[in-house]
Amino acid sequence: MAKPKNAITPTREEDFPEWYQQVIKAADMAENSETRGCMVIKPWGYGIWEAIQSDLDSRFKATGHQNAYFPLLIPLSYLEKEAEHAEGFATECAVVTHHRLEAEKDSETGKTKLVPSGKLTEPYVIRPTSETIIGAAFSRWVESYRDLPLLINQWANVMRWEMRPRLFLRTAEFLWQEGHTAHESQEEAIVETRMIHQLYADFLREVLAIPVVMGEKTEAERFPGAEMTLTVEAMVQDKKAIQAGTSHYLGQNFAKAQNITFVGRENKEQHVHTTSWGVSTRLIGTLIMAHADDDGLVLPPRVAPQQIVIIPVTPKEETKEAVLESCEAIAQTIRRDYSYAGAPIRVHVDKRDFGGGVKKWEWVKKGVPIRLEIGPRDVESRKVCVQRRDRPANEKDFVEREEFFQNLEGLLAEIHQSLLARATTFRDENITEITTLEDFTLHWNRENPGWITTPWAGSRTEEEELSKEHKITIRCLPIDGQDGEEAKCILTGTPTKQRAIWGRSY
Amino acid sequence: MAKPKNAITPTREEDFPEWYQQVIKAADMAENSETRGCMVIKPWGYGIWEAIQSDLDSRFKATGHQNAYFPLLIPLSYLEKEAEHAEGFATECAVVTHHRLEAEKDSETGKTKLVPSGKLTEPYVIRPTSETIIGAAFSRWVESYRDLPLLINQWANVMRWEMRPRLFLRTAEFLWQEGHTAHESQEEAIVETRMIHQLYADFLREVLAIPVVMGEKTEAERFPGAEMTLTVEAMVQDKKAIQAGTSHYLGQNFAKAQNITFVGRENKEQHVHTTSWGVSTRLIGTLIMAHADDDGLVLPPRVAPQQIVIIPVTPKEETKEAVLESCEAIAQTIRRDYSYAGAPIRVHVDKRDFGGGVKKWEWVKKGVPIRLEIGPRDVESRKVCVQRRDRPANEKDFVEREEFFQNLEGLLAEIHQSLLARATTFRDENITEITTLEDFTLHWNRENPGWITTPWAGSRTEEEELSKEHKITIRCLPIDGQDGEEAKCILTGTPTKQRAIWGRSY
Repeated sequence: MAKPKNAITPTREEDFPEWYQQVIKAADMAENSETRGCMVIKPWGYGIWEAIQSDLDSRFKATGHQNAYFPLLIPLSYLEKEAEHAEGFATECAVVTHHRLEAEKDSETGKTKLVPSGKLTEPYVIRPTSETIIGAAFSRWVESYRDLPLLINQWANVMRWEMRPRLFLRTAEFLWQEGHTAHESQEEAIVETRMIHQLYADFLREVLAIPVVMGEKTEAERFPGAEMTLTVEAMVQDKKAIQAGTSHYLGQNFAKAQNITFVGRENKEQHVHTTSWGVSTRLIGTLIMAHADDDGLVLPPRVAPQQIVIIPVTPKEETKEAVLESCEAIAQTIRRDYSYAGAPIRVHVDKRDFGGGVKKWEWVKKGVPIRLEIGPRDVESRKVCVQRRDRPANEKDFVEREEFFQNLEGLLAEIHQSLLARATTFRDENITEITTLEDFTLHWNRENPGWITTPWAGSRTEEEELSKEHKITIRCLPIDGQDGEEAKCILTGTPTKQRAIWGRSY
Repeated sequence: MAKPKNAITPTREEDFPEWYQQVIKAADMAENSETRGCMVIKPWGYGIWEAIQSDLDSRFKATGHQNAYFPLLIPLSYLEKEAEHAEGFATECAVVTHHRLEAEKDSETGKTKLVPSGKLTEPYVIRPTSETIIGAAFSRWVESYRDLPLLINQWANVMRWEMRPRLFLRTAEFLWQEGHTAHESQEEAIVETRMIHQLYADFLREVLAIPVVMGEKTEAERFPGAEMTLTVEAMVQDKKAIQAGTSHYLGQNFAKAQNITFVGRENKEQHVHTTSWGVSTRLIGTLIMAHADDDGLVLPPRVAPQQIVIIPVTPKEETKEAVLESCEAIAQTIRRDYSYAGAPIRVHVDKRDFGGGVKKWEWVKKGVPIRLEIGPRDVESRKVCVQRRDRPANEKDFVEREEFFQNLEGLLAEIHQSLLARATTFRDENITEITTLEDFTLHWNRENPGWITTPWAGSRTEEEELSKEHKITIRCLPIDGQDGEEAKCILTGTPTKQRAIWGRSY
């Protein structure tokens, strides 16, 4: 099979949003369903989510958190308790109003059909996030400072009725983890909020090979009900931003709304300080947009459902058996004797009855980090033909089998590093320092303008006006860069040490 | 602290249902929430679920299944496609009818409150099970026999509006796995159905230490829409039955309702044969009722969130540090050098500032398989004081530390075996063979009557009448026992080789 110019049509250059959809389709990761705005996550996409979950879960447990599970349905009255929070989510809540179905005869057609029945006295919303229902549990659980800190995480599905859904990035239902913690003091809660912020940044770099900018959201962009929202912002290949994870210090807002109190060390009743933090299946969208190319998905090894795929090349019937045996033997040796990032290496032998070219391109499009082709001559010479997904699809490297084994862990690490380095260079090349309002305006008139960093001391209203005008947002006030030299705010001219990063975003 | 007569009040003997609730509370596993019929699964209960998940997930993957994720919300029209299925679930479906909330002024109080708004043209039900929505995906995915078998599993939450909820056993929302597979032929689909049936029985025995009776449900008790339902039935300590897991052969019913067709080897378009199978958080309820005693939960080691808890005994300040160090050293040695059932041993040092008695009883009630008490004298003598949860709470065994380490894996295996043996004896002693209708009637007038096995050749109507009369059901037609001698059906007198197991159930 001749290689098409590119395996994915259109290319990133030609039509980035459509390219994104086509990459997902070609890798067989997910698809739209007939439930409005909801996707089906297919095995290849779900395998990536399992790898993400498993790694994050260990990190949460290593930092003292425990998993628990809270109800999917939230009584409407809970949501109303924290006003800003309710306002923030009211327009996107799926509401359960009935608890059974009844057959009813359609007066026109004469057919019976099922209609909602058993109206609930109080409706429920499907959780868009669980601060209120977990807060209600916390208020039952906490009595004394001895019960603190409470460090809880939940893996769950949530719903936010999205008007413009897009696979992985923005779906009505998505999978996520939400951490919820309660602490004795503001200091402790803020330490937790920052620790998780760093944990997310480390995870994105070490596992997804995505470099992020760490910073704080401005008031306009904060989580509804939070005192402080920390964010990790990723730049993807069209130079837009994706908020990849957030960690919120909620102050005593939820504690007061829900009466989460404890008797402190000085025997005084007081409110806890809470935090919440989460990442979701959105990470998979981020991953695709960060690394995929015009031949399809490109997976960093740590989240690849298969890290190595072995493709037997069997031109003649008489050597077929020997080739297949050799492929299986290589796979078994790798599984048994080698590891990467502390886990056995995931390797698959593709024995399906298709041509080698068809199979090769399927795995290219699925983003498998290493492909090995083994033909009759390779069996004899004890060599393997190594192809790396971070290199052009037709680049091949013939290596002695033993040498390949010995370098395998290093090779996987090198692929991770090369993706990370490429993404880091791209990000750094596309953040411009801008110091005047004139340059600011010019910048946003360019095509694919990338991010900018500016001195900023404007008000919330000024920020919102500028944002609206240019269809941008302040992605964050970056943590690195708050101790810089004083410079004049691009809008107000007020001298400030503070910098803001602006960009278009998903 | 003096030992109370029993840690749990009431005892099993005094009030089994209330004892069950108290065990859950004392072990801090779960609690009711303000969402009707929904529970909060607390960390200790969720830890057990994680262990169950992780073990089952490996078994599913080892038998070729892949995980995926499908929408929570099912369009009403999907449910209607398979008539029996719709009828079976219609009375217990939570229905989503609106997609936003709006503030409305209450005309009486003058206060604003949130009310459902944005009515959906077609309502959705929250999945009570996913045959219909997964079937819709399968009909998109399958074209040729080359796409078969499709072997999919989903870990998810589901809702069935229960009128009499009970923690873990029967809750409006529960967590489960649901397997869904599609095959070329009836034979293949039935092989799959039976393989999973056996997998569940093995899992219950090997991991939960619960012996089950494997059998087939009668038509009256079948899953709505199935051709054959296989079940694993567990007997718990009040001699009632719990259906712990089911595996269904669905024939072509769902395939026809949802148009899941493929072009076969003879180039003919035909319908697939499907199966579905699941176990849920109900397993945790089963586990409690099978093994817990009047001192609280008793956990088989493989699902214990902590398998060993070390309790430092520190009567004097001057030896405290040495004791704590010794406890930590023992824990580290166990974690580093020993394993059970192929995984590192989970061990916890309870360093909290409470009395030793308080701590001991907390871990007894939580069902931890092994408790170690380490005091100053044990540090010097290099001994450990071992207490097993399957033995009376005050039984102690002083063992040389090295000897304890060497025997640790064996000790955990022995605890598992002793729980399994106890449950097996209990079950076998409480299944009575009954051959006449007179004895049958007498049996159900006894208190805690246990199960019976009878020759059975009655009709569905006859079965339903008998069941109603005695508040019992046929739990299954056991697989072992269909090849026995001919005997007369207890009701009809017709000679039959078939045996039925009858019992009261949860």
